[in-house]
Amino acid sequence: MADEAPFQFLHNEMIQYIYKTAENGETENGRNITKLETMGFRVGQGLIERLTKDTARYKDELDVMKFICKDFWTCVFKKQIDNLRTNHQGIYVLQDNKFRLLSQMSAGKQYLDQAPKYLAFTCGLVRGGLSNLGVKSIVTAEVSVMPACKFQVMIQKV
Amino acid sequence: MADEAPFQFLHNEMIQYIYKTAENGETENGRNITKLETMGFRVGQGLIERLTKDTARYKDELDVMKFICKDFWTCVFKKQIDNLRTNHQGIYVLQDNKFRLLSQMSAGKQYLDQAPKYLAFTCGLVRGGLSNLGVKSIVTAEVSVMPACKFQVMIQKV
Repeated sequence: MADEAPFQFLHNEMIQYIYKTAENGETENGRNITKLETMGFRVGQGLIERLTKDTARYKDELDVMKFICKDFWTCVFKKQIDNLRTNHQGIYVLQDNKFRLLSQMSAGKQYLDQAPKYLAFTCGLVRGGLSNLGVKSIVTAEVSVMPACKFQVMIQKV
Repeated sequence: MADEAPFQFLHNEMIQYIYKTAENGETENGRNITKLETMGFRVGQGLIERLTKDTARYKDELDVMKFICKDFWTCVFKKQIDNLRTNHQGIYVLQDNKFRLLSQMSAGKQYLDQAPKYLAFTCGLVRGGLSNLGVKSIVTAEVSVMPACKFQVMIQKV
């Protein structure tokens, strides 16, 4: 349990810092989310480079997604994605039933409005990881009941 | 090796972000170091709470320091402190021969001037951890040849 704690605490501090140094307002919230997403993107890029150093090439897009759900997720969150679904047309839904970066918050709907800032970094993380595997994507997140969380990946065909 | 990577990458992003958003100048550098140290302090406080949840009380100050060198260090950096020395008068020197947050940088003296910003968070981390164990301290760091690093802890008697 303590294994992923340094990462979690640092992640929380970073959110707090970004929100504290910014001015208030709706526009600013959007900008903070973007900053967090960008940070995640770069961390995702770095992680993929390190994780795939000795692995073989991936067969196809689905194979890449499975790698993200297993190895990549385990590296960051010490667990795998619980469920991966796809419409086979470039949309993937990754479901984590106990998402670590939300698990410190009260379960249920009480702090649902606070969820986006705790998800932005991870959306970027996935997008950055995929990007370095040659898959361009848009990643969004959705929470209905904490700490469960769904990440939707829309592959951008080039 | 990939285990501590998310933390390392996030730590780097945080430093970059803090330095990027600040204005230039000598004073600002000091302020950034303080910001990083403060973040580390809070992360250290949180970590100690989680790590010591089920442990017995510590016999004395030296016992606390040993805990920091072993369990605490391993939790964050996946290795122990290599050498702990004390003058038995409230000064402790913790030496890490391969400090993870410096290991990505070129060994030797080339980037020695960049070291302080990579050490500030960890100084805070140790200070925060000790603080939550009832030990008030001042923590500074010193690098002579990367990636080896010494943290000096000066206990503040109350």
